Amino acid sequence: MAISETAAHPFRIEEDALGEVKVPADHLWGAQTERSHVNFQIGVERFRWGRHVIRALGILKKCAALANGELGQLPKEKVDLIVRASQEVIEGKWDSEFPLVVFQTGSGTQTNMNANEVIANRAIQIVGGQPGSKKPIHPNDDVNHSQSSNDTFPTVMHIATVEAIESLLLPAVAELREVLNTKSQAYEHIVMIGRTHLQDATPLTVGQMISGWVAQLDQALDTIRQSLPLIYELAIGGTAVGTGLNADSRFGEVTARYIAQETSKPFISAPNKFAALSAHDGMVTVSATLRTLAGALMKIANDVRWYACGPRAGFGELKIPENEPGSSIMPGKVNPTQCEALTMVAVQVFGNDHAVAFAGSQGNFQLNVYKPVMLHNVLASTELLADACRSFTEHCANGIEPNEKRIKEHLENSLMLVTALNPHIGYEKAAKISLTAYREDISLREAALKLGFLTAEQFDEWVRPEDMTHPLQKKSSGS
Amino acid sequence: MAISETAAHPFRIEEDALGEVKVPADHLWGAQTERSHVNFQIGVERFRWGRHVIRALGILKKCAALANGELGQLPKEKVDLIVRASQEVIEGKWDSEFPLVVFQTGSGTQTNMNANEVIANRAIQIVGGQPGSKKPIHPNDDVNHSQSSNDTFPTVMHIATVEAIESLLLPAVAELREVLNTKSQAYEHIVMIGRTHLQDATPLTVGQMISGWVAQLDQALDTIRQSLPLIYELAIGGTAVGTGLNADSRFGEVTARYIAQETSKPFISAPNKFAALSAHDGMVTVSATLRTLAGALMKIANDVRWYACGPRAGFGELKIPENEPGSSIMPGKVNPTQCEALTMVAVQVFGNDHAVAFAGSQGNFQLNVYKPVMLHNVLASTELLADACRSFTEHCANGIEPNEKRIKEHLENSLMLVTALNPHIGYEKAAKISLTAYREDISLREAALKLGFLTAEQFDEWVRPEDMTHPLQKKSSGS
Amino acid sequence: MAISETAAHPFRIEEDALGEVKVPADHLWGAQTERSHVNFQIGVERFRWGRHVIRALGILKKCAALANGELGQLPKEKVDLIVRASQEVIEGKWDSEFPLVVFQTGSGTQTNMNANEVIANRAIQIVGGQPGSKKPIHPNDDVNHSQSSNDTFPTVMHIATVEAIESLLLPAVAELREVLNTKSQAYEHIVMIGRTHLQDATPLTVGQMISGWVAQLDQALDTIRQSLPLIYELAIGGTAVGTGLNADSRFGEVTARYIAQETSKPFISAPNKFAALSAHDGMVTVSATLRTLAGALMKIANDVRWYACGPRAGFGELKIPENEPGSSIMPGKVNPTQCEALTMVAVQVFGNDHAVAFAGSQGNFQLNVYKPVMLHNVLASTELLADACRSFTEHCANGIEPNEKRIKEHLENSLMLVTALNPHIGYEKAAKISLTAYREDISLREAALKLGFLTAEQFDEWVRPEDMTHPLQKKSSGS
Amino acid sequence: MAISETAAHPFRIEEDALGEVKVPADHLWGAQTERSHVNFQIGVERFRWGRHVIRALGILKKCAALANGELGQLPKEKVDLIVRASQEVIEGKWDSEFPLVVFQTGSGTQTNMNANEVIANRAIQIVGGQPGSKKPIHPNDDVNHSQSSNDTFPTVMHIATVEAIESLLLPAVAELREVLNTKSQAYEHIVMIGRTHLQDATPLTVGQMISGWVAQLDQALDTIRQSLPLIYELAIGGTAVGTGLNADSRFGEVTARYIAQETSKPFISAPNKFAALSAHDGMVTVSATLRTLAGALMKIANDVRWYACGPRAGFGELKIPENEPGSSIMPGKVNPTQCEALTMVAVQVFGNDHAVAFAGSQGNFQLNVYKPVMLHNVLASTELLADACRSFTEHCANGIEPNEKRIKEHLENSLMLVTALNPHIGYEKAAKISLTAYREDISLREAALKLGFLTAEQFDEWVRPEDMTHPLQKKSSGS
Repeated sequence: MAISETAAHPFRIEEDALGEVKVPADHLWGAQTERSHVNFQIGVERFRWGRHVIRALGILKKCAALANGELGQLPKEKVDLIVRASQEVIEGKWDSEFPLVVFQTGSGTQTNMNANEVIANRAIQIVGGQPGSKKPIHPNDDVNHSQSSNDTFPTVMHIATVEAIESLLLPAVAELREVLNTKSQAYEHIVMIGRTHLQDATPLTVGQMISGWVAQLDQALDTIRQSLPLIYELAIGGTAVGTGLNADSRFGEVTARYIAQETSKPFISAPNKFAALSAHDGMVTVSATLRTLAGALMKIANDVRWYACGPRAGFGELKIPENEPGSSIMPGKVNPTQCEALTMVAVQVFGNDHAVAFAGSQGNFQLNVYKPVMLHNVLASTELLADACRSFTEHCANGIEPNEKRIKEHLENSLMLVTALNPHIGYEKAAKISLTAYREDISLREAALKLGFLTAEQFDEWVRPEDMTHPLQKKSSGS
Repeated sequence: MAISETAAHPFRIEEDALGEVKVPADHLWGAQTERSHVNFQIGVERFRWGRHVIRALGILKKCAALANGELGQLPKEKVDLIVRASQEVIEGKWDSEFPLVVFQTGSGTQTNMNANEVIANRAIQIVGGQPGSKKPIHPNDDVNHSQSSNDTFPTVMHIATVEAIESLLLPAVAELREVLNTKSQAYEHIVMIGRTHLQDATPLTVGQMISGWVAQLDQALDTIRQSLPLIYELAIGGTAVGTGLNADSRFGEVTARYIAQETSKPFISAPNKFAALSAHDGMVTVSATLRTLAGALMKIANDVRWYACGPRAGFGELKIPENEPGSSIMPGKVNPTQCEALTMVAVQVFGNDHAVAFAGSQGNFQLNVYKPVMLHNVLASTELLADACRSFTEHCANGIEPNEKRIKEHLENSLMLVTALNPHIGYEKAAKISLTAYREDISLREAALKLGFLTAEQFDEWVRPEDMTHPLQKKSSGS
Repeated sequence: MAISETAAHPFRIEEDALGEVKVPADHLWGAQTERSHVNFQIGVERFRWGRHVIRALGILKKCAALANGELGQLPKEKVDLIVRASQEVIEGKWDSEFPLVVFQTGSGTQTNMNANEVIANRAIQIVGGQPGSKKPIHPNDDVNHSQSSNDTFPTVMHIATVEAIESLLLPAVAELREVLNTKSQAYEHIVMIGRTHLQDATPLTVGQMISGWVAQLDQALDTIRQSLPLIYELAIGGTAVGTGLNADSRFGEVTARYIAQETSKPFISAPNKFAALSAHDGMVTVSATLRTLAGALMKIANDVRWYACGPRAGFGELKIPENEPGSSIMPGKVNPTQCEALTMVAVQVFGNDHAVAFAGSQGNFQLNVYKPVMLHNVLASTELLADACRSFTEHCANGIEPNEKRIKEHLENSLMLVTALNPHIGYEKAAKISLTAYREDISLREAALKLGFLTAEQFDEWVRPEDMTHPLQKKSSGS
Repeated sequence: MAISETAAHPFRIEEDALGEVKVPADHLWGAQTERSHVNFQIGVERFRWGRHVIRALGILKKCAALANGELGQLPKEKVDLIVRASQEVIEGKWDSEFPLVVFQTGSGTQTNMNANEVIANRAIQIVGGQPGSKKPIHPNDDVNHSQSSNDTFPTVMHIATVEAIESLLLPAVAELREVLNTKSQAYEHIVMIGRTHLQDATPLTVGQMISGWVAQLDQALDTIRQSLPLIYELAIGGTAVGTGLNADSRFGEVTARYIAQETSKPFISAPNKFAALSAHDGMVTVSATLRTLAGALMKIANDVRWYACGPRAGFGELKIPENEPGSSIMPGKVNPTQCEALTMVAVQVFGNDHAVAFAGSQGNFQLNVYKPVMLHNVLASTELLADACRSFTEHCANGIEPNEKRIKEHLENSLMLVTALNPHIGYEKAAKISLTAYREDISLREAALKLGFLTAEQFDEWVRPEDMTHPLQKKSSGS
C-alpha cells in the first residue's frame, strides 16, 4: 500500500544494505524507515510514536554526538551538524518524519534508524546537500556512531518514560492530591457515618475520610518516585550485545552525563549493560507503580460516585459538579462521568501493565525484543493517568461538597452510636436500646426514652458522634 | 483547550438540558458532543473512535428509524431523512464529525448523542435547514426515538465487534492458515528431529510440525466463531434500565431484524435486556477467544524464529525472508522481525483482554459503565491481530522454507534414532551404542560399527528416521 | 529433607535409568517418584495433586491397558492386573501414594511415572510379588505401554477438567441459578427504583432485576458447556512428539473410546496430536469461560451486598441471612460475608486464569512444558467456584428477601416518576414539577400539588411505577 | 459437613452474639471460629492459613497485650496470661487450632476471632479454667482489647509478609545470586558467540553473559527490599474505621514498638489509618516486586534451558545436572526440569499478582474486604519463589558448566567475526569474505584465504574474538 502511494508521488532512491529503496521525495526519512513503513502496516492509526519518544530520540542523538566529539570519535563539524538537526527533532519540528509504529522489529532498530536518517538528511539539508547522499553526514557512521539500536532504544525508553512521568504525571497527581487535601481540611469537623463491609459502622469526619484518599495518593507518588532510579540507568555504551564493542570505553558514561545535563534528570550509565539490553525489569517495576496508582484512583473514584449516589435513593452524602445533562427527563440526575472516565483509565492501565510485565519476561540471550511494546504501554499509562487526573481534578474533585443534610440524617439514624452509652449505662442496656431501635425501626433516642434507661438530656449529652471520631484521649482507668 | 480553539473560530449556539453551548460552526456535532469534547481531554491522540464504531452507529440509527417507521413511531418523512443521513455516516462521509474519545461517560451516552446530533444536523442540512435548530429532525426525539444510550451503545458494541471480527480478522487468520497448510503439505516428506523439553527427541516431518500450527489456527478460528452468537444478541429495545420503557414492545426485535438485513449477520434481540445493559459477558468471552488466538500465534511465531535461529550457531532449520537489513556488518543476519511484531501484538492482546475482563466484572445494578473501554480493547485486539496476521503472512509465512541441509545434519547426528534398533538387537545393546556415541561424541553409526553389533548395511537398513514418524502400522505380535 | 526422612525409615532399593534409589518401604511409589519427591520441594503444603487428577490417572491407565489388550499389545493377564490396580486408584484407595507437586517437570512426566509405579507395584502386590521387582508388571513396559508422558499427561488434564467441571461446577452454578430464578419469579411484582451510573433511574421490578443475574448465569453455563468439546479431544496416541511412534495406529482412538465409556463423557481422539502436545489452547479457552463466570458472580455478589447495604444509611433494599455476628456492638449489622468470599474467589479465578493463559502461550516445538501449572489452575478455579457457589447458595442466596418498606420509600421519593406525567401535562410542566421537588427537597406529589398542575387523585392515577416496568403495549399513535 | 462431624464427636457449647454454638470439645477454638468453619467450606484442602499467618497472629496478640498493659488498659495478670498463650501460638504449638480458610469474610474477622478464641481458651487452660467460660480471659474484651479485626488483620498481613520475604525469600534469591556470580567469575575468560533477535551476533564471555543474570537478581533484590517500608507501616491503632475509637491514642505506636522488638523488623505505626484499613496499596506494590523477580527468573531459566538445548541438535553451550531420567531410551537426554519448575512458578506468581492488584482496587469507603485473598497470594508467591530458587540453586545452578567444545565451534563458525578485519582490509573486502563464507557455507578463514585478501597468519592474528568482548580501550584516531 505504502509502495503504491509513493509510486503516485515523486520519490528519490536511497540505498541500504539490502539494496535500493524508493523514498518519498518530500520526506526526510530514508531507506530503512521506508522499508519498515511498508513492511509493518500494523495499527497504523493508533500506534505511531508520539512526542515523548521523538524528543528522547533527539536528545539521545544530540548527546551521543557531543560525547563522540568529546572523546575524539567525530570531528567538530559533524558533531555541530548532528547537534543542530537533533535539536530541531527535540523541539518537535520533524514529528511528521516519524511514521513508524510500535509493532515493528522488537529491538526498535527501525525507529533508531528513522532518527538516524532524519537527522542525517536534515543535517545534509542544513548545509545545502542532497538528502539521501549520506554526505557530509551518514546515518549509521555518524549519527549512530558508537551506538547500536540495542543500546540506543532502551536508552530512549528510559528518557521518554522519566520525562513523561516527571513532567506530566507527577504534577497532575500532585494537583489532585492538593485539591483533596484542601477538601479534607475544609471538612474536618463534619461527622459522618462510617461504613465497613458496606454496612453502617462507627462515625468519622468527612475530613478523615478524604485524608485516606490523600494518603493513598501520597503513597502512590512516593512509590512512583522511588522506582525512577531504576530507569535513570541508561543502556547507552553497551552497543550490540552489552560488551561495548566499537565504542570508546567512556562513551556510555559521557553520553549519560550529557543526557543528564540536557534533561536535568540524574541519568547515569547502567552498571551492567548485559542486563540493560536483555531485560527491562526497571520498566516493569515502573509500570507496576503506575498500576498501584491506578488502583488507588479506582478506589477514590468509586468512593466519590458511591457517596454521590442518589439524588434520592442512594447515599447522597457528597455533591459533585453537574457537567453534562445526565438525562433529559430527570433534573438532578448528575452522572459521575469523570469518575467513570477515571475508572476506565484505571482498568486500561491494568491491561497495559499486564502487557508490559508479560513482555518483560520474554527476553532471550543478549536481547529482549519486546522493547517497543513495553515503551508504548508505559507511556500510554502515564499519559492516560495524567490526562485523567487533570480532568478529574478540574471537572470533579474541585467541586466536591458534602451534602450536610444527608450526612446528618444518616448519622442520626445510625444504631452504631449506641456504643457511646456503654460507659454510662452498661453494655447490656445499651444493647437492648439498639435492638429495640432496630426491630421497631425507630431511632436510638426514641428507643432509649421508650425503655426509660436515660433522659433525653442525658442522651443528647452522652451520644455525641464527634467524640467517636478519635481515640481515647487519656489513660483509661481499666478495661 | 477545546474552548479556546472554538473561541478562535466561528461558532453557533446549541442548547441542551444544561443550557447553551458554543459549537464550532463548521461542524455537525451539537451541544452534548461539544461538552464531552471539552470535558474529556483524555488520550485525545490515540483514543478517538474509529471506522468500525462510527459505521455501527450509522447502522443502528438507520435501522432504529426504519423500525420506528414500521411500528408507527415516526412519520415516513422523518424516517427517510434519518436513513439518508445515517447512510452517509455508514459510508464514512462524516468520520471527522466524531471527535470524542473512549474515556468519557461509561455508558457511551456522549458518543450516542454525537451520532444523534450529527445525523440530525446532517438531515437538517439535507433539507436546507439550520443546523442546531433541531427542526425538522430532533437529535433526541427523532434520531434517538425509542432508544436510550444504555441500549444503543451496547448494540453498537456488538455490531462493531462482529463486523471487525468477521470482515477483518477471520479472513486474515484463514489466509495465514492456508499458507501454512500449503507449507505443511509441501514439506510432508522432509523428516526432522523432534524436540521436547527443548531436548532432541524422536523425529517427525516438517509437514507434521507445521500441521500442529495449522491445527491451532483451526481451533482458534472455531473458538472465535463459536463465541460470536453471544454478541449477535442485541440490547436494543431495553431503553434506560432494560424494561423497554417508552419503546414499543416490538421495537427491539424489529430493529434487530433490520440490523441483520443491513449487515447480513444473524443479529437478534437479546432475550434478557437487564443482563444486556448491566453486563457484557459476551464481550468478555469474545475477548478471551482473541487471547486464545494470540497465544497460538505466539507459539507459532516463537517456533518460526527459533527454527530460523542462526545462521551458524542456532537451529537454522527454517529459512525466512530477509525483509530489512539485520545488520550492516553481517551478511546472512536475518532478523525475524515479523515474528517480533506478531509476538508484540500477542502480548498487547493479552493486556487488552485483561482490561476487558476486569471492566466486565464491574457492573452495578442496572448498568455496567465500562462500555467504551471494553469496546475499544476488543476492537484494538481484533484490528491488531488482523493487521499482524496479514503482515506475517505476506512478509514471513509465505517465504518460509526448510533448510534441508541443516535438518538432515541434525537428524543424522541424533542419538534418538537408536530406538529403531531395539527390535533388532535388543534394548541393552542399543543403549550401549547410544551411550558410546554420546560419550565419545561420535555418530550412532560409528558407535554401532565400533562396537561390532551390526554391519553398516544393517544399520542403514534399520535406522530409517522416516519410519519413526508414524505409529505402528499393523498389529504388533505382543510387547 | 525427604532423603533424611527416608534414611530414618525402612526403605527398599528401586532402580531407574539413572541408577538406584532408596524408596520408603511402606510406600508403593518407585524410583522416579522418589527422585521427584526429593528434587522438587516446592509448595509441598498446598500443591500436591488432588482427587480429580489421581482419579483421571487411574482412568487413563485402566483404559490404556484395555486398549493395549484389545489391540494385542499386552497379554490378557497383564491387562487384568493393571485394570484391577488402576480401579483402586480410580476409587481413591491410594491417594496418599501420590506425593508429588505441581512444580515438577513441565510435561508431568513424574506424575505419569508416579501412576505407573503405584499401579505396577500394587499389581505386583495383588499377585503376591515383590514391590520394586517390576515383575510381573513393569511400570514403563506394561503400565505405560504405547504411551509417553507427553500424551498421557494432557489426556489426564482433559479428563480431570471435564469431570471437575461437569460433576462439581455446573451443578453448583445451576443450583444457584435455580434459587435465583425462583426469587425472580417470587418477586416479579415488586416495583423498585432502577439505578444507572449509580444514580436513580426509571423503575423495574425486583423480579426483573434478579432475572438479569439469572440470565448471566445461564449464559455462563452455556459458555462453559460450549467450550468443553475443545477438551473432549484427547492427546493419547501421540506418544512422544505427536507421531504416535511405538503405538498401534488405532491406540488413540480405542483408548479414547474406553475413556468415554468409563466416564460417560464424549471423549474422542484429538485430530491433530502435534497441537495436542505442544499447545493447550482448549484449556486456555475453558479457563477463560471460568473467568467469565467469575466476572458474572462478581457482579451478582456486588449487587447483593450493595442492595443489602445498611441497615439505616444504605440502600437496604434486600435482606440477607445473618450467619455470623457482624459486630459485638451493633445489632442488625449483617456483614455480607458470603458475598465477600464469593468475590474473593472471583479475583482468585482471574489470577488463576492469567497464569493459565500465560503458560499456554509458552510452548516450544513439540511440547508445551507448562502442563502441570495449567492443570492446577484450571482445577483450582473449578473447585473454588463450585465451593463458593454452593456456599453462597446455601448461606446467602436462599435467604435473600426484599425489604419492601425501603423499596417503596425509595420508589416513592424518586423524581424519575415524573416521566409518567409527560403524556398528560406535557414535558415542560413535568420538568417544572421535578425541578421544584429537587430544589425544595420535597416529593414529586407535593411539588405537583403545590404547583397546582394536577389534583392528588390525578397524580395517584397517572403516576404508577408498575406501568413503567415494561415497553409500550400497543401501537403508539405517533411520536 | 463440619456440623455432622462435630455431631459425631463430643462437643461443648460456646456462645457468641448470635447465640449458642456446638464446638468440638477437643479443640481450643470457639463459637465464631466454628461458625466460619461451617459456613465457609471453600477450598478447605488448599486454602487454610499457614505458619506465617498464625505466627503473625500470635505476635500481634502478644504485643497488643503488652501495649495494653503498658497503657494501663489491661491488668498485669491478664497481660501475662495472654502473652504466655500467644507465645505458644508464635512457636507453632497450636497450628492445628486454626482451621479457617482464605475465603471467609473479607476483613479476616473470623481469623482474628480464631486467634482471640484460641489464645483465650489456652490462657484459661493454663490457669486450669474451663475453655469456653471466657474467664479469666475473654476473647473479645481481653485478647482483642483496643483492637478491631479491621486493624488487626492488616497488621497481620504486613507482619507475615515481611517475615516471609525477609526470612525465606531474600536469602534464597541471594544464594542463587551468589552461585551465579561465582560462575560468572569462573567463566569470565571463555568467549562465546552473542545472540540478538535469536540470531548470531558479536561475541561476549560466558562470565559477561551470566553477569547479566546476576545484575537482574541484584536489581530484583533491591526492588523488593525498597518496597518493604510500605508494609513496615502497621494499621494497628485504627480500630473499626481508622479513627482509633475505643483505643488509647498511643496504642498503635506502642504496639508497633513491641512488634518491632519481637520481630527485629522496623515496624512503625501507619501515619494514616483510614488508608491503612481501606486500601492495601503497599501489598499491591510488594506483590509487583515479586512479579518483577518472577520475570527475571523466567528470563534466566529460559536462557539456561536454551543454552543447554541438545545434546546434538541444539545450542548445547551449557551443561546442566542430570537429576532424573529424561528418557529410558536416549542417554544424554537431560531435561531441564528445574528450569521448568521455576518458570511454572513464575507464571503462577504472575497470576497471584494479578489477583492481588485486582483485589487491591476494590476497596469501598472505610474498608477493603479482600484482605485474606491478598495476603494469601502475596505469601503464596513469596513461598513458591523461595522454594523454587532454593531448588533451582541446589539442583541446577550449582552444576551449570560451559560446554567449551560447542562454544568454541559456534564461535569459530561465526560470520560475525569478520568485523575484526575492517580496520585491516577495509569494510568492502571484509564484506566479500563474509558473503563468500555464507554463500559457500565455509568458514570465514577459508573464505578469506580463498579470496586471497590476507594470509592465514594474518587471519589468526587479527581475528581474535576475545578482543571483541570489550569497548575500545583507547582514544580512536577518528571514525
